[in-house]
Amino acid sequence: MPLITPRTLKGFRDHLPESMLQREQLIDKVKCIYQSYGFSPIDTPALEYEEILLGKGSDETDKQVYSFEDHGGRRVGLRFDLTVPLARFSAQHIGELGTPLKRYQIATVWRGENTQKGRYREFVQCDFDTIGTKSVVADIETALVIHDLLIALGCEAFKIHINNRKILTGLLSSLGIEDKTVPILRCLDKLSKVSREKVADEMLKIDGIGKEAVTSLLAFTEIKGTSEEVLKAARDLVTDNTTFLSGISELSELIHGLAVAGVSDSKVHLDLSIARGLDYYTGNIFETFLDALPEIGSVCSGGRYDHLAETYTKTELPGVGASLGLDRLLAAMQEIGVLDNRSLGAEIFIVYFDPERRDDYLQMARSLRSAGLRVEMYVEPKKIGQQLKYANRRGHRFALIAGSEELDQDLCQIKDLGTGDADPISLKGGYENLVVALKQKLAD
Amino acid sequence: MPLITPRTLKGFRDHLPESMLQREQLIDKVKCIYQSYGFSPIDTPALEYEEILLGKGSDETDKQVYSFEDHGGRRVGLRFDLTVPLARFSAQHIGELGTPLKRYQIATVWRGENTQKGRYREFVQCDFDTIGTKSVVADIETALVIHDLLIALGCEAFKIHINNRKILTGLLSSLGIEDKTVPILRCLDKLSKVSREKVADEMLKIDGIGKEAVTSLLAFTEIKGTSEEVLKAARDLVTDNTTFLSGISELSELIHGLAVAGVSDSKVHLDLSIARGLDYYTGNIFETFLDALPEIGSVCSGGRYDHLAETYTKTELPGVGASLGLDRLLAAMQEIGVLDNRSLGAEIFIVYFDPERRDDYLQMARSLRSAGLRVEMYVEPKKIGQQLKYANRRGHRFALIAGSEELDQDLCQIKDLGTGDADPISLKGGYENLVVALKQKLAD
Repeated sequence: MPLITPRTLKGFRDHLPESMLQREQLIDKVKCIYQSYGFSPIDTPALEYEEILLGKGSDETDKQVYSFEDHGGRRVGLRFDLTVPLARFSAQHIGELGTPLKRYQIATVWRGENTQKGRYREFVQCDFDTIGTKSVVADIETALVIHDLLIALGCEAFKIHINNRKILTGLLSSLGIEDKTVPILRCLDKLSKVSREKVADEMLKIDGIGKEAVTSLLAFTEIKGTSEEVLKAARDLVTDNTTFLSGISELSELIHGLAVAGVSDSKVHLDLSIARGLDYYTGNIFETFLDALPEIGSVCSGGRYDHLAETYTKTELPGVGASLGLDRLLAAMQEIGVLDNRSLGAEIFIVYFDPERRDDYLQMARSLRSAGLRVEMYVEPKKIGQQLKYANRRGHRFALIAGSEELDQDLCQIKDLGTGDADPISLKGGYENLVVALKQKLAD
Repeated sequence: MPLITPRTLKGFRDHLPESMLQREQLIDKVKCIYQSYGFSPIDTPALEYEEILLGKGSDETDKQVYSFEDHGGRRVGLRFDLTVPLARFSAQHIGELGTPLKRYQIATVWRGENTQKGRYREFVQCDFDTIGTKSVVADIETALVIHDLLIALGCEAFKIHINNRKILTGLLSSLGIEDKTVPILRCLDKLSKVSREKVADEMLKIDGIGKEAVTSLLAFTEIKGTSEEVLKAARDLVTDNTTFLSGISELSELIHGLAVAGVSDSKVHLDLSIARGLDYYTGNIFETFLDALPEIGSVCSGGRYDHLAETYTKTELPGVGASLGLDRLLAAMQEIGVLDNRSLGAEIFIVYFDPERRDDYLQMARSLRSAGLRVEMYVEPKKIGQQLKYANRRGHRFALIAGSEELDQDLCQIKDLGTGDADPISLKGGYENLVVALKQKLAD
């Protein structure tokens, strides 16, 4: 039989041990922060009925869904985000789980979109949401979680951009173009990616939108200053629209709450230009940019939505949450250089020196592991130089070396793979001395 | 628009917070054991080219693959195990990674098989393998990892059944029916599930297999006794087949190594009846049964294979490993009652008592979290009884209760949600007292 070329699909990739360890480490930190606010994990199937998935995001996301007919003739699809499954999940289980439902989900999603640098067709999202409450406390917590996440991950220099959908829709309504909200928000959402002129041109293409409206809208998104200044300028602009005013008030409460909870002003940026393209947001919205890499876009985005599960249930399920883009953030952290380089292997490496003494090495490994150490015994009695080369590549910290002669004298060498220094240690009476010595060296 | 019924596909399911926490906890323990032997994580895409997936397991698994045409007209499929992706991965990356490659992968797989009680179409496998060595040390380690996994997960009563493929193929060759190895092994693999008679009938249906051969084969699989007794009886039975004899010798080395490494005899069972249905095994093979629930089948299975990646590369890639069936094990642990019941929420619950004092609660939550505590503040100022009911359901350990009057006097109540006892604590000078008191109470 001819060989099959081993390859992954375009837009998909393997994670090798080094990158996978970094991912696992990051995910552990993310879980830790979510749990510190009382969020609990859930999971949903990768495959859902196609009717559950389609028509929830936009035509664009619909086209990207990997969908097909399963063995039973059902139309099914791979989830393209974690929000639609959350909506279905909430409609199905909220009676049992009660509200507020504070859940997180860290899971893979699939989108058959055009691949670009740093964009994959399979990626991991880390979502957290609070379902079943309209309280602004949940909005404040959402921003606090984003804040704590980035600090915990070692990205100290970032800004959470906030805005409120009601301000935008209120403004549109005061301009008499509220029926164009969806296409206009889609245009505005591109402001951070394409030029002002291009956005203006696109908006003008929307039926019923004139030059004046476009000028007002763009001028509005360009209001700059401290949160207080921006709020004041906005308040002066539209005074008679209740939607607009309640947006202003929700934003004020959010900003106040963040300040009270100790978030530095410098980390929060009231940005009237952010819109979040997805249609379902209805209140405060969030995007997060790294100071060092604003061009990669928001690494953690979200907002408040009042009608999460309306296609599945008549129960009103308002909520608020955000999604951390793990892959984008990892790429960014790599670029900024804030990724820890973890050892790939165990701490301790046992050289398989003398084939006749295999039993000794097996027993040594066992005793050290029982004492809580991570230990790799080399699998074959190859040349010691070759074994140590392997150990260095894998990042073991200490190698244990003992041949027949040494073992006969109840001796073993502890070699520091960083410095190259070797210390003899007595194995008389068992491995206790060795455990103590290794723990001490690891702690130093 | 009519409502869409919120439902999952047949054979798929949601994981609610309680079950998901247990899964996460189990996975953390599994990773810990893998890492304690120097295994590192990798990941591969859920979707692969169909040609990579098909023809690797059996016709049965081929039929179960979820396959379809993607947006680019490629035939693709969802992985049905982690071994085939590992073979592809190894062929692709072994040059960069070197050998031995000790990797683990904990990931979801999909099979469109008929659903039965406790069988799902989407489930998680936890695989670990050592690639690129024929050393029996890697076989010994594989069994040690299985042993340590089950102990760490709290399943103390189990047996690792071991056998060697060479013994079976050697026996068949000595009976002159080595060309029927694959169908015979498939029959023998069913011995733990259906009656001896049914297996005999099935074997007789194989072209060229006579009654005598069936009797010999079944008699062989029924040799019972201690490992030494079984080895002796087997050795007496076939004396002149080199394949058979090298199988016996590999098994002896494995058994010796396990004893040396401190594994109790009672945990290892030389069982000539296990065959592992999959064709690719070539040496020692493993299955693991819980004493309390043998009927659920093996919870951790694997073995040695000498030609893992032969369809993708001419490089010889021998290896050994095993796969822990997370979902099956979880179901078993639930039944035996060895699952920890973890709290669903954070440790500390802050009652949102007085809407006027929201800022105080936000600051309190922030200070406690900074001190490393997990804290949930209720999102709405509902009646205190309702809030405490929620806290009890979520398993918080302590509630902090403070109204305006108390806060004016710098006071707060710590209510133990288990006993109902409440202690006042002073907040004078900040939250330090509170942190100390809570940490003390949590440690008690």
